[in-house]
Amino acid sequence: MVSISKPRGTRDFLPEEMEKRRAMEKKMREVFEKYGYEEIATPTFEHLELFTLKSGEGVIEETYAFADKSGRMLALRPEITAPVMRFYVEKLQMAPKPLKLFYFGNCFRYDRPQSGRYREFWQMGCELIGCDTPEAIAELIALAYDVLKEAGLKNIILRIGNLDFLRSFIDKMGIKDKGEVMRLIDKEEYEKLDEMIGENEYYEEFMEMLKEKDITKLKKFGVETKKFEDVLSWLSLFNIPYKIDLSIARGLDYYVGIVFEIDAPSLGAEKQICGGGSYKLISLLGGKEVPTAGFALGFDRILLALEKEGFVFSPSEKPVYLLPIGDEMRKEAVTLAMELRNEGIKVEKDLMRRSVQKSLQYADKRGMKKVIILGEDEWKKGTVSIKDMETGKQKEVKKEELLIHL
Amino acid sequence: MVSISKPRGTRDFLPEEMEKRRAMEKKMREVFEKYGYEEIATPTFEHLELFTLKSGEGVIEETYAFADKSGRMLALRPEITAPVMRFYVEKLQMAPKPLKLFYFGNCFRYDRPQSGRYREFWQMGCELIGCDTPEAIAELIALAYDVLKEAGLKNIILRIGNLDFLRSFIDKMGIKDKGEVMRLIDKEEYEKLDEMIGENEYYEEFMEMLKEKDITKLKKFGVETKKFEDVLSWLSLFNIPYKIDLSIARGLDYYVGIVFEIDAPSLGAEKQICGGGSYKLISLLGGKEVPTAGFALGFDRILLALEKEGFVFSPSEKPVYLLPIGDEMRKEAVTLAMELRNEGIKVEKDLMRRSVQKSLQYADKRGMKKVIILGEDEWKKGTVSIKDMETGKQKEVKKEELLIHL
Repeated sequence: MVSISKPRGTRDFLPEEMEKRRAMEKKMREVFEKYGYEEIATPTFEHLELFTLKSGEGVIEETYAFADKSGRMLALRPEITAPVMRFYVEKLQMAPKPLKLFYFGNCFRYDRPQSGRYREFWQMGCELIGCDTPEAIAELIALAYDVLKEAGLKNIILRIGNLDFLRSFIDKMGIKDKGEVMRLIDKEEYEKLDEMIGENEYYEEFMEMLKEKDITKLKKFGVETKKFEDVLSWLSLFNIPYKIDLSIARGLDYYVGIVFEIDAPSLGAEKQICGGGSYKLISLLGGKEVPTAGFALGFDRILLALEKEGFVFSPSEKPVYLLPIGDEMRKEAVTLAMELRNEGIKVEKDLMRRSVQKSLQYADKRGMKKVIILGEDEWKKGTVSIKDMETGKQKEVKKEELLIHL
Repeated sequence: MVSISKPRGTRDFLPEEMEKRRAMEKKMREVFEKYGYEEIATPTFEHLELFTLKSGEGVIEETYAFADKSGRMLALRPEITAPVMRFYVEKLQMAPKPLKLFYFGNCFRYDRPQSGRYREFWQMGCELIGCDTPEAIAELIALAYDVLKEAGLKNIILRIGNLDFLRSFIDKMGIKDKGEVMRLIDKEEYEKLDEMIGENEYYEEFMEMLKEKDITKLKKFGVETKKFEDVLSWLSLFNIPYKIDLSIARGLDYYVGIVFEIDAPSLGAEKQICGGGSYKLISLLGGKEVPTAGFALGFDRILLALEKEGFVFSPSEKPVYLLPIGDEMRKEAVTLAMELRNEGIKVEKDLMRRSVQKSLQYADKRGMKKVIILGEDEWKKGTVSIKDMETGKQKEVKKEELLIHL
């Protein structure tokens, strides 16, 4: 006898949690479909190189990696954009463009478990391949916002940034390790950033740009704002509120141009529930480069945010409980259960040969609303009794009319 | 530039495949729910011990196992029954019985990829906890059969065996390594079995028993058939055809008593699509033993079998294509797309600023049935054109009446 617990940082989901998750998954999936996106899926693990290509050592640290029997390194996917691009390069390059793909899948992150961060977590997201007109990027951002609104979130904040502005300014500053500057900004480690580039003549101007919220004032930093403005003007057609936030740096090196994040302030410190933007991965993977953009939604955090906002999930109907009295009725109950199930009704039949009292206690504990009691005398005259567990009232109905009463 | 392919033995799923998988998942899930089962989920990886507890080295060979940072071994789950029992012991022992739980999840097997066998594969299955009356076991078997029928399979064969018969007979033969005998039977390695126990005085009788299909003749082998007969008599109420097959040994050591398998003959050699039975795992995991039984369905093989049987999936509706002509109309199209999506209609809007001809080609390639054309003149008089891609016919309709025509 041993005691084996679930691995640290992972979760088991109870029926009431799974019901919420499945309902939310369905609702969110429908929004992607309404925008003309189609679902695909990729394997749970990939060759490790796929994730280290552009992201380097930092990613390995937090990735579950292991060798296969031939010694080649595999990794549990930390995110799903690179796998979708790998799929695209392997199989989908000839498909008509734009390709609008979405996914829902589990990802893995090997860091210290903390509130709202699990070692296994779920992402729903999408990739728009082959198209980067301003209206396309605007629609992509609108889709992310719409999914979250349709999920039921009331309070969300959309922030939009632009990595081209950051990178071109860092170039102007003559800093070689752009990636490191971006990482420090992404992690909001401004003290370290100050240590690193504080002496630079453009440092103050750079910090000012990071804080600039007014698009009309961005030009003075010498960045090319035309396409950014175009996207924002298309976005305004969707009536979606947003803030300019040039301090968005995204964790992954393959992002370019416009990036965006959505927060749920109800979550406190770990508030980001969506991240996305334009990126370049295809040529790295050996394919012919076409424009790509996408976003990923943190499914677990969305559920947590809904809870914090007091969202009320409407639970699905509980089964009807079938309570046969005596051996003969137990056999009749098998057939009746089959008939009701064929009509699409959820039926749980007593399997324990319990007394009426114990059966009613069980049905009550399980939250069932209706119990059908099969007594031999009633059955002979063609009736059964239905007990309403909420009112406690019981009525006798004809077998043929049972369906009407359920 | 590198070329990274998907790991050997894994699969990417195209939209048309995912659509079938999601539709089938939904259909099968509904059958479990109609029987009063509730969905749960467990992590994708577990501590390796969970799977080696009772199954020994054979399992490790085929399991993706890896050490975490503290050196403790983790494993990608090869099956989901042991995780559900681990969950039960950790969290659900106090829940009202019977507990009827089902799951749908991916599993991993590290063997040579072959037709219908993948390194990552999906199982839908259930566990019935706290109840082992004959009618409960009969209902469990009926549920497995019903799920497969509802999935659309026409030709399936249910075989029912009994491990108690096998084990008690092996005891009588005085053979110590029962597990090895069971494994050889499970893998149908009868030559090796002959080598191992061919000299035993009861060998021929044992082999005769394995082939016996008639329950009334089983008693002569000195086994206790009462409960087996009870289950079969309850099962007959469900009108489900079955065969007795005492050569079912199940691969895993924790099965006891009644076991069953369902085949789809259309699949040829790898025809088994369901396996289940009663088992004992709880006390091994440190819990208080209660009766348990369940089964797992091979989701991928079910889809393959449906294909072989010529099952026709009805594809979901394709999006309506919105084709605005000119800059002004492109803006109007954003609002129209929003309105239609709010009505629950799938809409794909031209994002590439393509010509009418190219747009129609794209819509056609994507299999879309209807294209809404927004021309400036028409728009001014309050109309749009709908082109039916199948007939090629085009008609002008009022904007307000657009919904009726979709």
